[in-house]
Amino acid sequence: MTNLIIRGGTVVNHDHSHPADVLIDGETIVAIGTAIDAPTGAQTIDAGGCYVMPGGIDPHTHLEMPFMGTVTADDFEWGTKAALAGGTTMVVDFCLPDPGQSMLAAYQDWRRKSEKAASDYGFHMAVTSWSKQVFDEMEIVVKTYGINTFKHFMAYKGALMVNDDELYNSFARCAHLGAMPLVHAENGDVVARMQEALLGRGVTGPEGHAYSRPPEVEGEATNRAIMIADMTGAPLYVVHTSCREAHEAIARARAGGKRVYGEPLIQHLLLDAGEYQNKSWNHAAQRVMSPPFRDKSHQDSLWAGLQSGSLQVVATDHCAFTTDQKRLGVGDFRKIPNGTGGLEDRMPLLWTAGVTTGRLTKEEFVAVTSSNIARILNVYPRKGRIAVGSDADVVVWDPSASKTISAKKQMSRIDYNVFEGFSCTGGPAVTLSRGKIAWKDGELRAEKGDGKYVERPPFSPV
Amino acid sequence: MTNLIIRGGTVVNHDHSHPADVLIDGETIVAIGTAIDAPTGAQTIDAGGCYVMPGGIDPHTHLEMPFMGTVTADDFEWGTKAALAGGTTMVVDFCLPDPGQSMLAAYQDWRRKSEKAASDYGFHMAVTSWSKQVFDEMEIVVKTYGINTFKHFMAYKGALMVNDDELYNSFARCAHLGAMPLVHAENGDVVARMQEALLGRGVTGPEGHAYSRPPEVEGEATNRAIMIADMTGAPLYVVHTSCREAHEAIARARAGGKRVYGEPLIQHLLLDAGEYQNKSWNHAAQRVMSPPFRDKSHQDSLWAGLQSGSLQVVATDHCAFTTDQKRLGVGDFRKIPNGTGGLEDRMPLLWTAGVTTGRLTKEEFVAVTSSNIARILNVYPRKGRIAVGSDADVVVWDPSASKTISAKKQMSRIDYNVFEGFSCTGGPAVTLSRGKIAWKDGELRAEKGDGKYVERPPFSPV
Amino acid sequence: MTNLIIRGGTVVNHDHSHPADVLIDGETIVAIGTAIDAPTGAQTIDAGGCYVMPGGIDPHTHLEMPFMGTVTADDFEWGTKAALAGGTTMVVDFCLPDPGQSMLAAYQDWRRKSEKAASDYGFHMAVTSWSKQVFDEMEIVVKTYGINTFKHFMAYKGALMVNDDELYNSFARCAHLGAMPLVHAENGDVVARMQEALLGRGVTGPEGHAYSRPPEVEGEATNRAIMIADMTGAPLYVVHTSCREAHEAIARARAGGKRVYGEPLIQHLLLDAGEYQNKSWNHAAQRVMSPPFRDKSHQDSLWAGLQSGSLQVVATDHCAFTTDQKRLGVGDFRKIPNGTGGLEDRMPLLWTAGVTTGRLTKEEFVAVTSSNIARILNVYPRKGRIAVGSDADVVVWDPSASKTISAKKQMSRIDYNVFEGFSCTGGPAVTLSRGKIAWKDGELRAEKGDGKYVERPPFSPV
Amino acid sequence: MTNLIIRGGTVVNHDHSHPADVLIDGETIVAIGTAIDAPTGAQTIDAGGCYVMPGGIDPHTHLEMPFMGTVTADDFEWGTKAALAGGTTMVVDFCLPDPGQSMLAAYQDWRRKSEKAASDYGFHMAVTSWSKQVFDEMEIVVKTYGINTFKHFMAYKGALMVNDDELYNSFARCAHLGAMPLVHAENGDVVARMQEALLGRGVTGPEGHAYSRPPEVEGEATNRAIMIADMTGAPLYVVHTSCREAHEAIARARAGGKRVYGEPLIQHLLLDAGEYQNKSWNHAAQRVMSPPFRDKSHQDSLWAGLQSGSLQVVATDHCAFTTDQKRLGVGDFRKIPNGTGGLEDRMPLLWTAGVTTGRLTKEEFVAVTSSNIARILNVYPRKGRIAVGSDADVVVWDPSASKTISAKKQMSRIDYNVFEGFSCTGGPAVTLSRGKIAWKDGELRAEKGDGKYVERPPFSPV
Ligand SMILES: [Zn+2]
Ligand SMILES: [Zn+2]
Ligand SMILES: [Zn+2]
Ligand SMILES: [Zn+2]
Ligand SMILES: [Zn+2]
Ligand SMILES: [Zn+2]
Ligand SMILES: [Zn+2]
Ligand SMILES: [Zn+2]
Repeated sequence: MTNLIIRGGTVVNHDHSHPADVLIDGETIVAIGTAIDAPTGAQTIDAGGCYVMPGGIDPHTHLEMPFMGTVTADDFEWGTKAALAGGTTMVVDFCLPDPGQSMLAAYQDWRRKSEKAASDYGFHMAVTSWSKQVFDEMEIVVKTYGINTFKHFMAYKGALMVNDDELYNSFARCAHLGAMPLVHAENGDVVARMQEALLGRGVTGPEGHAYSRPPEVEGEATNRAIMIADMTGAPLYVVHTSCREAHEAIARARAGGKRVYGEPLIQHLLLDAGEYQNKSWNHAAQRVMSPPFRDKSHQDSLWAGLQSGSLQVVATDHCAFTTDQKRLGVGDFRKIPNGTGGLEDRMPLLWTAGVTTGRLTKEEFVAVTSSNIARILNVYPRKGRIAVGSDADVVVWDPSASKTISAKKQMSRIDYNVFEGFSCTGGPAVTLSRGKIAWKDGELRAEKGDGKYVERPPFSPV
Repeated sequence: MTNLIIRGGTVVNHDHSHPADVLIDGETIVAIGTAIDAPTGAQTIDAGGCYVMPGGIDPHTHLEMPFMGTVTADDFEWGTKAALAGGTTMVVDFCLPDPGQSMLAAYQDWRRKSEKAASDYGFHMAVTSWSKQVFDEMEIVVKTYGINTFKHFMAYKGALMVNDDELYNSFARCAHLGAMPLVHAENGDVVARMQEALLGRGVTGPEGHAYSRPPEVEGEATNRAIMIADMTGAPLYVVHTSCREAHEAIARARAGGKRVYGEPLIQHLLLDAGEYQNKSWNHAAQRVMSPPFRDKSHQDSLWAGLQSGSLQVVATDHCAFTTDQKRLGVGDFRKIPNGTGGLEDRMPLLWTAGVTTGRLTKEEFVAVTSSNIARILNVYPRKGRIAVGSDADVVVWDPSASKTISAKKQMSRIDYNVFEGFSCTGGPAVTLSRGKIAWKDGELRAEKGDGKYVERPPFSPV
Repeated sequence: MTNLIIRGGTVVNHDHSHPADVLIDGETIVAIGTAIDAPTGAQTIDAGGCYVMPGGIDPHTHLEMPFMGTVTADDFEWGTKAALAGGTTMVVDFCLPDPGQSMLAAYQDWRRKSEKAASDYGFHMAVTSWSKQVFDEMEIVVKTYGINTFKHFMAYKGALMVNDDELYNSFARCAHLGAMPLVHAENGDVVARMQEALLGRGVTGPEGHAYSRPPEVEGEATNRAIMIADMTGAPLYVVHTSCREAHEAIARARAGGKRVYGEPLIQHLLLDAGEYQNKSWNHAAQRVMSPPFRDKSHQDSLWAGLQSGSLQVVATDHCAFTTDQKRLGVGDFRKIPNGTGGLEDRMPLLWTAGVTTGRLTKEEFVAVTSSNIARILNVYPRKGRIAVGSDADVVVWDPSASKTISAKKQMSRIDYNVFEGFSCTGGPAVTLSRGKIAWKDGELRAEKGDGKYVERPPFSPV
Repeated sequence: MTNLIIRGGTVVNHDHSHPADVLIDGETIVAIGTAIDAPTGAQTIDAGGCYVMPGGIDPHTHLEMPFMGTVTADDFEWGTKAALAGGTTMVVDFCLPDPGQSMLAAYQDWRRKSEKAASDYGFHMAVTSWSKQVFDEMEIVVKTYGINTFKHFMAYKGALMVNDDELYNSFARCAHLGAMPLVHAENGDVVARMQEALLGRGVTGPEGHAYSRPPEVEGEATNRAIMIADMTGAPLYVVHTSCREAHEAIARARAGGKRVYGEPLIQHLLLDAGEYQNKSWNHAAQRVMSPPFRDKSHQDSLWAGLQSGSLQVVATDHCAFTTDQKRLGVGDFRKIPNGTGGLEDRMPLLWTAGVTTGRLTKEEFVAVTSSNIARILNVYPRKGRIAVGSDADVVVWDPSASKTISAKKQMSRIDYNVFEGFSCTGGPAVTLSRGKIAWKDGELRAEKGDGKYVERPPFSPV
């Protein structure tokens, strides 16, 4: 077993910071303190002037995912390498059964694809239809596969979308199994009709994508999912909360004592709908995702949610398509593959726009990038905390590091970056993944296959 | 032509009151003033100490309606007689096509049934499915039949319920035609599942009806209908707004500049869910309606909405079933015919609980019982105002009248009254229907067939 | 007596519009109808293609007012001439007792100054301190002088400001007398400290004015005044509601059933805080008023309030100082006389930005420029309605008129206009003041002294 | 040094629970784990079936406080003994300078009185006037005395109350020093006038106390304090948040990204205004405190705030007066000494009403009774967490313990208990205060003087 000691930094957890050294034995943190005797031969990492934080967790990625007739360009290898380069040590990906495919088979497919992962990872399982088989398999997914979260799409009509009756059934099943339902919240019926109307009026470009799914359709669906979860007694996690309307639905529910969580993406915190007006079709199409970027006025609401605790997690929905893939949608915005990247950039961007501006404390930064989602996913404090006994997923964060984001230098396999040219202050000097140095001095040391699958136990059933 | 002069009263309109006499020639108000010379032979009504107000309009009745395997007990004759006895001079009923029936045929059925009406009346047309035929017939309904409102049921799954896609299509059509969509807002999918769950747990009595459709399912559906209307550019009228959640959805929409209207019922303003705990099955079942009565805490919200203008209309949803009819639901609350009465009692009860308590001014009373809905339905000021040129639908309101509500003395053909024993202060001394005395000194003078069908022109299309 | 008939227009009242001619006999409307026989010799005004609306009422002006060591540049003659040129036929000015001066003496001063008025006018009386004398004089003001409104300043510390104890006493007295309290709502203590802090940091220019009184200090004071009024049982009218925070305080109160009214100014609806960043000191200082212009984001809230009814009145706070007067504040923004003009421009600007954009219907335009305030001030329907018996204060509104606002052409005696260069669509073709043509074909015909003082009766005491 | 090991329990921290033993060496926790070797001679506490939680912190007590002409009945000895008997291991008391007294002298007085304390304790310092001396002394209070919180009274006119100008000055000073302002938020001007009015109407009994300070006056003051703090850049802690209005002001501020905290009392969570209608003057007067108990409808809002995180701390405002002392107010409710007890009962009552009902998780229980306030007061994780290195302030909580509250058996020196007869499920089996057994098996072992003063460092200045 190798020993490793991080000296001279300030340990930052979601609820407290203090100067301390951190001693790692193998994959685990074994001591935290101010005068630790390191075992002979222990490797030392100098964290002077740095923060020693739990590695980031990104609970929303789509690696090597078949979607809209193509496959996302970043697989588990390159997606997780991007993650590690940006301080993120665990991702949670969405396991999507094909139409008619059993969840069990889908799980096997995803496990196979994920063997390449360089960082730790877990899965959410998608419920894309309802049947006795689905009902039965959910129990196996929870109890045998260690998956305690089920994803539901309220949009993508004719493909992944489920209706209210199906949501009710699945949420009730989640409540029974001690699992947490997740929703992609947009009203798919309305989106489909508005897409039709726009195309009927001759709007075919990427801007039509944004017009066809305004904040109102997300706010409505969020409000609806919350009600249905409440009726079944299940908690609810709303992925990619992008707008004031959706945030307010969540905040209202929480103010009524309901257990509802919201996840803004780093994209929605920083980018706005003006991108879709770019004269370059490619530029605009590269930014097509659902929900689309919003008017700038929504960003204040999301930031305030992170500050006040009505939103809990910042994710990426990393779902990378190359420009070539995006061009499948020339002439019909409905065919542009939905998705953008962000795994490598989430933490530096959030630090820059959140912490250096005074919006978030460094403890809150840890909360929304790591600890909160670890708690929500029931893997805390194994993940999400610098504590004795925790996995040694650690990022040594240098607040004075600076970097300009550029597709040319990124891990991701795609040919552009939606944050191209953004300047970041603060970034990972070192990333440790279960005690192994995965990233240091601007160089990736993690290797394909270093990652492990993380099982997550269910909550107490309701 | 007969002349009639109302002397010595205070004319109360929604925006102003002042002492004045009112002269009527035939069916029409021809003069209002303080020193009117009445034509020779004019009949005089003494309104000393009384308010002279526009006759009430109840925009929500179900007379002689086939529903849940039976037919409502009050037909157009007795429903409108009850209305006139209570100061209401016009009702608007819901024309419901049978499954597969054309709107045009349904309209003919309703016109036939309504020939018995003793007061004036109009119709809303229900959209219970979507097809090219429905699309086409809506235009005829608006342009030929003078109906500018279409009703949509978001509940009653398997029967009247339409889904979001159908709502979108119909609302868009309404916007195009200058018509107003109406919704019964409850999430029918969720209600159906909760009914199942309750019956599965052995809850079969009337209290199960209330448990299966809590305020949350109404609030959700209201919020959803508002979004869909907004996307199509249509305004929206929400019938029987019964709870804080639904009211808040409406108020939020209005605070965002949307044209949305809400209609609390006199029942929800005064009665609460405690009624369903009554030991008598009959008592509880007589009060079964959708939405059900709510916890008392919701009533303050509804009253405040009427005061502040975020709710506009007080109606009855008069839908009367005898106790015998209600007993169809013994053993399964889903089979209790939904509906209660109220046409005769709405105005005296609202005056008692609203005006004598200081919650509403007398002008606001006129607004919410008559003028607001006349404006919303585009028949103002022909209806809904004491003005020269308006129909002489007038109620001489005696604020000192007192009455105890009793099924024994009511016009309605049913054997009970959900307000049995309520004491009212204030009531109609005289009701005029287009210049004819319909009710005076506690006696009904209106006759079967006195009422006329009122056509309502569309609004400017969007 | 002269007769005058307005032919061929559409009469627009706050609750209904219809094509009709309007016959005027002397100062009064005597007939409205579609086929009116005009008396011989009646003068005809052609209103073809035009709207015939009640003349505007501006309830917030400061004419010939001593303030901050100078006197406003528009006196009652030129202020009311500006009003008439813009379609406004009545103003309500603030009668401000000097320190130690009795209300009765102040009233006499104001009556003397107002003899020059070309349009009708009324007064609000200011309560700037509290004593037995003030308590006693308030009764005379209400009962003898026909003033049913009392103004209170929560800002201008050391000058007009009153504290919470004084507000409570005065509001309670208003409730007793059937009068309505008005407030200028900004926290004067906090403003004074922030002014100090800004000057201490070397901020002396007009932008410091805005920095020292941000929306928060207005929102807070509005919320406080509402609470105090509620405790005394008085209704409340909040002048110059300029921001989301203040509007939300009003909307919250109304949603709780309280009788609270809010008055956005045309300036705050259209102009924003960017004006204070203008490089020209004069330009910025000309726009100094309290509350200051706000970030653009507040404007949506104000417009939505007008649409939904949580705000009721659009006024101007016309308080005109010349550039020379403004320059008293060079070197210390606290000494810039507070105030801007607007009397001539309010209605054309509101029509342009409100009606032609679809935000307000033409009926709502009449409501917020005339009818609502007439009702609030208890002079309706004498003022504020086109009705038989009403004063013939009428504006024939040409929706196709166009005009570019320019100080060079304005009635106001000042040398600039904060709306310089704004294009207006829609404006008054003819303005009638009690039956006399005051403005026609771009020419002013009203004369100094044509206006009359309008007494306003109290409401029923609480 | 003595060693002590707690075996077999489940350690509960605010963010996670897990089964573990806890080893204590002297005053400090030295190990937490599942297979700890205890040093020879270590004393063992069996925590089987129990939760091992950080000792409670009550940040709001008034021990041996001179107030309204008398002195609170519980001094530091008996107040802290009551605390320990109920699982609370630290109290924070309010140091109140007499009029004209320097803060430094007041601090010496309080230190002298607190020498008797049986548990650890700290102070808040009250700012009851403003002067150069106060400005200067605040720095000494923070830097020399280790007090990082300053209390301000917006009520108690003529005594402790400070006005908005003083609040602004003091909050700005707090921001500069890295201290946190606290407010008692009620509008003292309005309360004083309403007291007068009530007495004028002959209302002299304890019910008058409640009538004179309704929720609206608290909501207003809370909203005002938040605005003033925001303007100065200071965070804000609102003590004894008792009603929906105040909670909503806090929640609004937080939703806007402001750092504001709210503290409901266990009394307001469980008791309501009905108590003041009790026929016994003594019963009602014993419950007189400010803010008074509220209508039951407010309790849901407070509970939801604790669940959603918009309220953070549950305290007691322990301020005990005997019935004899209360009787000073016979004939004039203003003279009833304000205050109730609760130190011994806070944690068992909150567990019973919060955790056993499902409103709060056990982790949230720890958060609101201990960890949150430890973080807010900057003594975390020394206090407020079961962690290696933390003070061994530990409560072994037996969820199956049961107890009926009774004045006869309480530690407090007063002759009644406002929770008399309440049944509690869950309570402290053992309380450790810095490693010493303070309470065990229903017996108090702590002794007068065992407590130590806890210094609290300032936050980084703004
Ligand atoms: Zn998605
Ligand atoms: Zn996704
Ligand atoms: Zn219905
Ligand atoms: Zn109905
Ligand atoms: Zn002002
Ligand atoms: Zn003014
Ligand atoms: Zn207090
Ligand atoms: Zn206290």
